[in-house]
Formats: sequence, structure tokens, C-alpha cells
Amino acid sequence: MNQHRQDIDKEPLPVTGAWREGDDPGERHFLDITGGRPFPLEGGGLLEKAVLAYETWGRLNATASNAVLVCHALTGDSHAAGEGHPGHSGPGWWRELIGPGAALDTDRYFVVCANVLGGCQGSSGPASVEPVTGRPYGSRFPQVSIRDNVRAQARLASHLGITRWMAVVGGSMGGMQALEWAVTFPDRVGGLIAMATTASASAQQIAWSAAGRAAIQADARWRGGDYYDAPAGEGPHEGLIAARMVGMIHYRSDEEFNRRFGRASVERLDRFTLDHRFDVERYLRYQGEKLVRRFDANSYLILNKAMDLHDVGRRRGGNRRALSRISGPLLSVSVSSDFLYPRYQQMEIVDAVAESGCPVEHIDITSDNGHDGFLTETAQVAPGVTDFLNRLEKDSEIT
Amino acid sequence: MNQHRQDIDKEPLPVTGAWREGDDPGERHFLDITGGRPFPLEGGGLLEKAVLAYETWGRLNATASNAVLVCHALTGDSHAAGEGHPGHSGPGWWRELIGPGAALDTDRYFVVCANVLGGCQGSSGPASVEPVTGRPYGSRFPQVSIRDNVRAQARLASHLGITRWMAVVGGSMGGMQALEWAVTFPDRVGGLIAMATTASASAQQIAWSAAGRAAIQADARWRGGDYYDAPAGEGPHEGLIAARMVGMIHYRSDEEFNRRFGRASVERLDRFTLDHRFDVERYLRYQGEKLVRRFDANSYLILNKAMDLHDVGRRRGGNRRALSRISGPLLSVSVSSDFLYPRYQQMEIVDAVAESGCPVEHIDITSDNGHDGFLTETAQVAPGVTDFLNRLEKDSEIT
Repeated sequence: MNQHRQDIDKEPLPVTGAWREGDDPGERHFLDITGGRPFPLEGGGLLEKAVLAYETWGRLNATASNAVLVCHALTGDSHAAGEGHPGHSGPGWWRELIGPGAALDTDRYFVVCANVLGGCQGSSGPASVEPVTGRPYGSRFPQVSIRDNVRAQARLASHLGITRWMAVVGGSMGGMQALEWAVTFPDRVGGLIAMATTASASAQQIAWSAAGRAAIQADARWRGGDYYDAPAGEGPHEGLIAARMVGMIHYRSDEEFNRRFGRASVERLDRFTLDHRFDVERYLRYQGEKLVRRFDANSYLILNKAMDLHDVGRRRGGNRRALSRISGPLLSVSVSSDFLYPRYQQMEIVDAVAESGCPVEHIDITSDNGHDGFLTETAQVAPGVTDFLNRLEKDSEIT
Repeated sequence: MNQHRQDIDKEPLPVTGAWREGDDPGERHFLDITGGRPFPLEGGGLLEKAVLAYETWGRLNATASNAVLVCHALTGDSHAAGEGHPGHSGPGWWRELIGPGAALDTDRYFVVCANVLGGCQGSSGPASVEPVTGRPYGSRFPQVSIRDNVRAQARLASHLGITRWMAVVGGSMGGMQALEWAVTFPDRVGGLIAMATTASASAQQIAWSAAGRAAIQADARWRGGDYYDAPAGEGPHEGLIAARMVGMIHYRSDEEFNRRFGRASVERLDRFTLDHRFDVERYLRYQGEKLVRRFDANSYLILNKAMDLHDVGRRRGGNRRALSRISGPLLSVSVSSDFLYPRYQQMEIVDAVAESGCPVEHIDITSDNGHDGFLTETAQVAPGVTDFLNRLEKDSEIT
């Protein structure tokens, strides 16, 4: 970790970690989903121009029946698989699950992942240039929702010639998108893999999210959201770091922190000062500083709020009725030590979908990695995903 | 809640919520524990002058055998019992447990509670005037520890003519003090009541604490700790509010938040904006704003760090060996839904003390109030406390 940290410390901090026009596109493709007509948003307002940055792996077959959509979590992006590349912050975030011979086998499936609207890695978000003003949106970027993102991704699907995904897959905020996909467009989703997620954000999830937002908004360098013109290094980094620290604690678990850090100390404890750091503090700060280099504080606010607004039952007569629309089979995954998206919330989804007569499987991951277990415990997830996709593939050949 | 909020909103915010010299002393007494000689601190440094603000209820008996020390939690203070008074932020924080006829029966016991060193309600802390400079300490206030506080309280005990407490009682940070009392001065503690606490802060507890500190330190108005000369209202309030929001979530529980708030919304959800508030957000913000009026951001930093440094086994050969020094009986209390100080940590204390041959009782509070259950579930705690104190009293009459 020290070497990483030293490397990171060498580079000056940008105002935002967002990918911006003119930066190396890396593996990204871009699609303006508006086609010249403004994109209306669920919660009011429009996007004059709405670009999705997306990546694909594998080949779409002749019948377009082998397409799998991967939806990313809060700080994820389109770079779900593959190696690192100068245009990306690192190698694919789900590369253990996606690739040749992997569970999402790119020799067999055409895998697609798009950065969300409101994000900051190539899709339209607060750091993007607002067409009307020619300047970054900042505080003027409208509040998008998970449903907006699903509608945007549906346009991408049409553009790619995919009328029906073999499967839509995601965890956490990605799981919210997967659920919304299957409820909004039941005919366009063959099967659904939803991990460590919820049908609607709970009060405690909203609370965590609000605490993180409060930390960012308490940072004077946030400037009400309009900080992009500030000198380099003068972004709301300290606020975003504090928010990320809050996040990292509930992405992980008590057990893991005890095992990895315990009470080990960076500085010797022969003199007590406020600046003294325990190892766990250095770890959290390191994670925060890493995020500042690849993320945007406004996107953090907008996407956290989108997750708070997530409620699959909104204007659909409640969660149960909404989930009964789902027509394809569901593979559900939860993590034993996840206290951010506790198992009971995942089981509410399982129960509602099962009640409506859909085939449902559930995998309990045993892990002390907490919420992040859906990302880290590939060995426990991959066999179930492989089997599930094999069956979907067979079904799609039969029909 | 709205009425409260409106009332609070009417008053201008101070730079700090600390009690300061010249303010109404309320029920406080004051003792300079240094007696003119600097008070050395465990982690290095000295306090030239160290004042404890304390309160007492009931009367000390002729043999001084009926004294009970109550130790407060992070944002508590000396006003543990009794009514509200203009000099205090509200009625006693543990008034349901302390008073005439209550479990800590002030008709029978002499109850004492002192504000901690590093605090902000009358005892020496960062907002106090530094004797050398004649200005508030701010960033120059030294990092105190739980042990420092116990040594300070021991001087108060001597001043009051109490050579041995019949019992020392506390929850959370107060439980840390109670444990340190019984380990540091086993002969001066008749019995020990430790609630919702730990023998040493865990990595996750340190992590929460660090995230709150990061939010305060991200607020430019914190000014490195030297904000007391800023104009009224210009204290690091937003940072402290964000830290308190983080705190309030893990003082409570998922179950309680679901029950009390669910997804209820302050503003109508016909238009989505970043400023929209769910009820739980209003609640957290309200709690944050309330704290700003009665607490000091620097005290929040110093006391959180003191809790992180809490390690009853430090320089004593580990927790188990340290806890084996305890000679009086232990009453232990934990709360079913407490995920900040989980039950297993309380049971480590119970097991270690029991192993050394001391009588130990344990009460499991069933509550969805989370960590705060030790304060709110008086009905479940009081009978056990009453019995425990009755037996201590009998024992002390026999000896």
C-alpha cells in the first residue's frame, strides 16, 4: 500500500477525477441517446444532450440472443472487464467474473456495460459540458433516477440491435438497475441477476447516503457544486474523502477490519496526538484519496440521491406488485456480513418474485468482506452465475 | 419536531456550543484538580490548569460508603440528573435512572457526575482559556485519554472525601471510564456497571470515529482548530453536523429507522432535486443542529480520539490481564441491536472478569434503539441496577 500511496502522492490532484472531453477515451464508445431530441427525466427536467459511454466484450451473435448487460455500482464505470489502459483508472472492476472462459464468458456472450447518467467516466454528468452554456453543468445538472438510466440503456440496446438481453446483471446500485430493467421492460430481459441490493432504499441507506452528502457539502471547496473552474487541487477533495471513508466502512465489515487492522498503529503510540493514525485510518484515507483521482464529488451527490430515490414500486402500486411484473428467472445473491444491504432486503425481492411464479434461485455468500463481498467473492458467485446463464442460453435456443 | 426546529432556528448560532467562563454555571460545581501543580497526561504534555465541572445529587453518608460515580458518554456532560436549567442544554441525560426513588436512588446514594477533560461543558477542554496565553486552547489542547480522566476524577473523589466508590457506572465512553476506574484503582471501586462498551476500541469503531473527524476537518471553518475568534455563526458547524449524522446512524438501528421513518418524505416527490429531503434526513440534520448548540467541534475530535486510544490492556499485558485486576462485582449490559458496540465485545469483558473470579451479571436489553438502547430502555435496565446496588450496599455495611 505504501508504494501505491507514494506513487499517487507524486501526481498533482485534479479539480475533479471525472473523465473529461479531450481525455484519452480508452476502451469507451460513446452514444448520444437523444438523437437530437432532449431526453426527459423521470423527476422533471430534460437533458438536451445525453451521452452514454459504454464498452463491449465478445461478439453479438446473428440472432442477437447472447447479449448480457452489466450494470455498475455507485463508483463503478463502463470499464467492467479487461486490462488497465491509460484512459481508465485501472483494470476492469469485475474482470474476475467477465472475460474469456469466465462466468460471463466473452467467448460466448456479448457483454455490454455503460457508465450511468449522472456519473463521471464519459457519460453525461455534472462535470460534462452543458450544451446551452458551453460550461460544465455543476449545480445545474438535473437529478437523474435509476429509471432514467434504464430508459437510457434501452436506447443503447436498440442502437446495438439488441431487442432482448439474455440477462441483465448487477450488484448494489447495479442491482437496482437490473431490477428496474426487469420491471420496466419485462419482455426485454431474459433473466436477471441481482446481487446485494434492495427493491427500495431503506431509511438507514438514505441516512448513510445523506451523511456522505453532508460531508461533501460541508467542504467550502464544493462551492455549491460549481467548482470546476477552481485552480487545480482546489476541488472538494476533503469532503469527498470523508464521504468515501463513511462508505468504505459499510462496504466492509467489523470482522474484516478486526482481522486486517485490529489496533495496529502507523505512528508509535509513545505520544498521543490528534494526528496519530491507526492502520485502519490510513487505509480509509488511502481509499478516499484514490477515489478523488477517479471520481467527481457532484456525481457522488447525484448518484447517492438516485439510490435514495430508488423505489421499484413507485407509481406501480408498491414493491410487491412491481416485482410481479418480472417475467424472466431471477438469480439472487446476498452476502452474510453485508450490513449496508442486509440479507432480509434481498429476500423481500426473492419472495415477491417467487410469489409471482418466476423461477428464483438464491446464493448466500459467506464472507467477512461485507457489502463488497459480491465483488470480491467471485469463487462463490461464479459457478451459480455460469449455471444460470447456461440455462438461459438453452431456453433462448429453444424459444 | 417541527416546533423544536423552529424554536432552534430562531436563535443565532454561536461559534461553539461549549459552555464558557461567564456563562450561567447552572448546577455545576468546579474543582481545579491541579491545585497549582500541572497535571501530567498519559500521552505526554501537561495541563497547567485542569478544571472539572461536576454535579452531585443526594448526600454523602457519615462513612462515605454510599457514593456512586456516573461517567458520561461522548456528548454527555455533568448534568446527568435533575431538571432543565438555563445553564444547561436540557434536563439530565440519565434522569430516568437517577433521582429520588430511581435505580440510582438519590435518597440513598450520593451520586456524582463530572464533565470529562477535553469536553466542553465546564471542564477544561479546547474551548477553555489557556492560562499561558489567555486565549482559548484550540489546536493547542493536548490529546487526553480515558486514563487521564480517571486520574482526574480520582482527585475529585479525594476532594469530596470519597476513598472508595460504592459503584462506578457508565455506558459507551462512560463504560470505558468505568472499566479504567476498576482496573486502575481496584481498591477504590466497590462495584462496576459497564454498559454497551468495549475493553479496547475496535478497528471499526476507530473507523467511524475517523470518518466523523474527517468531516469536521474538511470544513474550512474548522481553521485547523483555531476558530474561536471567528464571527458568530462561523464555527465548523457543517462539519460537526455531518459527523453527528454519521454518529446518529450507528447510535440507532436499521429496524428503528424503518419503523420511525421508512421512506416518508418531507417535500413531495413530484420533482426530483438534490435538495429534496426524506424524513430521516430531516431528523439527522435536526440532531446535528441541536448538537452544534451544545457541543464543540474540537471536543468532538479530542474525545473521539480518546475513545480510539481506549485500550484497557495498554502497558498492562493485554485486556485479559488488565481486566483480571478488577476486584468488585461487575454488572454488564448490552443492547441486541447495537452494531457500534456489538454484544461480543461486551462479552469479552464479562468472560475476562468472570475468569478472574469476580461475580458477574449480564443483562441483554432487547431493543431496536441500537447503541442508544442503554440510555432509552430504562425499564429493562433499572431493576437489575437496583438489585446490584442493593447488594453492594449490603456488602459495604458488612465489611
